[in-house]
Amino acid sequence: MRIVVLAGGIGGARFLRGLKSAAPDADITVIGNTGDDIHLFGLKVCPDLDTVMYTLGGGINEDQGWGRTDESFTVKEELAAYGVGPSWFGLGDRDFATHIVRTQMLSAGYPLSAVTEALCDRWQPGVRLLPMSDDRVETHVAIEDPESGERRVVHFQEYWVKMRAAVDAQAVVPVGADQAKPAPGVLEAIAAADLILFPPSNPVVSVGTILAVPGIREAVAEAAAPVVGLSPIVGGAPVRGMADKVLAAVGVESTAAAVALHYGSGLLDGWLVDTADAGSVAEVAAAGIRCRAVPLMMTDAEATAAMAREALALAGEAR
Amino acid sequence: MRIVVLAGGIGGARFLRGLKSAAPDADITVIGNTGDDIHLFGLKVCPDLDTVMYTLGGGINEDQGWGRTDESFTVKEELAAYGVGPSWFGLGDRDFATHIVRTQMLSAGYPLSAVTEALCDRWQPGVRLLPMSDDRVETHVAIEDPESGERRVVHFQEYWVKMRAAVDAQAVVPVGADQAKPAPGVLEAIAAADLILFPPSNPVVSVGTILAVPGIREAVAEAAAPVVGLSPIVGGAPVRGMADKVLAAVGVESTAAAVALHYGSGLLDGWLVDTADAGSVAEVAAAGIRCRAVPLMMTDAEATAAMAREALALAGEAR
Repeated sequence: MRIVVLAGGIGGARFLRGLKSAAPDADITVIGNTGDDIHLFGLKVCPDLDTVMYTLGGGINEDQGWGRTDESFTVKEELAAYGVGPSWFGLGDRDFATHIVRTQMLSAGYPLSAVTEALCDRWQPGVRLLPMSDDRVETHVAIEDPESGERRVVHFQEYWVKMRAAVDAQAVVPVGADQAKPAPGVLEAIAAADLILFPPSNPVVSVGTILAVPGIREAVAEAAAPVVGLSPIVGGAPVRGMADKVLAAVGVESTAAAVALHYGSGLLDGWLVDTADAGSVAEVAAAGIRCRAVPLMMTDAEATAAMAREALALAGEAR
Repeated sequence: MRIVVLAGGIGGARFLRGLKSAAPDADITVIGNTGDDIHLFGLKVCPDLDTVMYTLGGGINEDQGWGRTDESFTVKEELAAYGVGPSWFGLGDRDFATHIVRTQMLSAGYPLSAVTEALCDRWQPGVRLLPMSDDRVETHVAIEDPESGERRVVHFQEYWVKMRAAVDAQAVVPVGADQAKPAPGVLEAIAAADLILFPPSNPVVSVGTILAVPGIREAVAEAAAPVVGLSPIVGGAPVRGMADKVLAAVGVESTAAAVALHYGSGLLDGWLVDTADAGSVAEVAAAGIRCRAVPLMMTDAEATAAMAREALALAGEAR
């Protein structure tokens, strides 16, 4: 069974671990969001790709969900001693090595997809991890500056990590997406899939950014395989992160049903909401999307595997 | 008093510490060798500049003479886990930060001289540290490959650090030197100097490389200031390192007198040899170079300061 998953960072990575457990023999291709990518200290950092790679490869810091386990911060402290920032992005020493290898390979002319494959040679994530595109895409967020009151555009990481989404996002723009091409293998994997999954990743800045690369949304919509998503919104609030802030920027309510309707029946064949949102099943179904309420909290490995099994079951019905 | 010092790595840096102690009010400009520079992991590493900067700034690993004190090697271990080398060059985590800052600034368009000044803002070495050139110069060494028997050209660092100069150097070539220009301030500092010193640095791959940048040798030869050197060879052997290997490549014997004659009276006004080499004073003097035998082992701070005082005294006689 060939499964394609459009994944962001922490939520996508944890769901993938459950999926591997639920479908150990499946051939899984992950199309990773690269809109979170950022150049820091002259190095190319791909937070979502790395979170998937580290999580599935056993190198993730389980407590925080991103970055390496058993991490130290000597390089960052030294950079600060040189007065070189930013200080708000937590790059550890082990993590730095990944970015150094990536940047060196990119400078030598390898595309990001080849670099990602080379990094995965070490981590053996048990999935095929593809960046959504080899072209540079960086999500920017328009905000009203809390001090000056002026409109300002900041990198997504500055909005998310530094400002912790403390002000409203007025617009979310995946800069470069309109000129980007899907990475080699992305459209082929979608076309050949037996199942396409949207994990409980951010619908705007993770899955939405992947779908913003010309050709990917169309390929998903036209795919023969059923497309099943899992709501990242439970009981009217994001399970983690601050998805409500960026949903508001695109005019979508922070409810499980609103996110399903945002994707729409043109993309989705099935949608899982949490049992807390059972009341919204009828609304989603009325829009032509098969819907079921099941526990959607990834509290541990077994709960996550159970979510994946529910997604597989719903896909079976939709097929 | 304006003093210009043409410095390599460990020997030059330690001598400079003695010089600062011997002449605390002097205005010291260091022209640093950059022929040892190497790109590793996509980062620009300048071993000699950093050794001077760390030594005078209080960050050096005193035992080994290079690299940072209180160092860890997490990044290097992680790079090795990715299968990315070389493993024979000992870059520590603290040291990596220096190379990351340097590479980022170079990529942004700053010349190496400006980058070095920025790095020294942190270290406050108490001297003005100039790279010999902002242009790329890398010393390469021709060897006979010990396995294949074929002639092969390797980077100086590979010869020195990886092979530990275990085979003879057939030729030493500062690649790029003939096209390089002295960095801003280098010729001006030499012309304005009251004293020019060659510390006990390697005559071929340190001082020799600096002199190979067109204009620098001529400026030293024509300078109004006396030029005084200290022999890096004591009792027929290098005090540290493997200078004999590269001296042989340029046809110079490993003796204190031969090195003085290699520089020649066109450059040198004075030359200090160790008391062990007192027998060679007459030979050097016969070549028109004022010479004296004094203790030249930098065993501690006071012995090193005493060497610097002897150099200042000899310069006073030559002036």
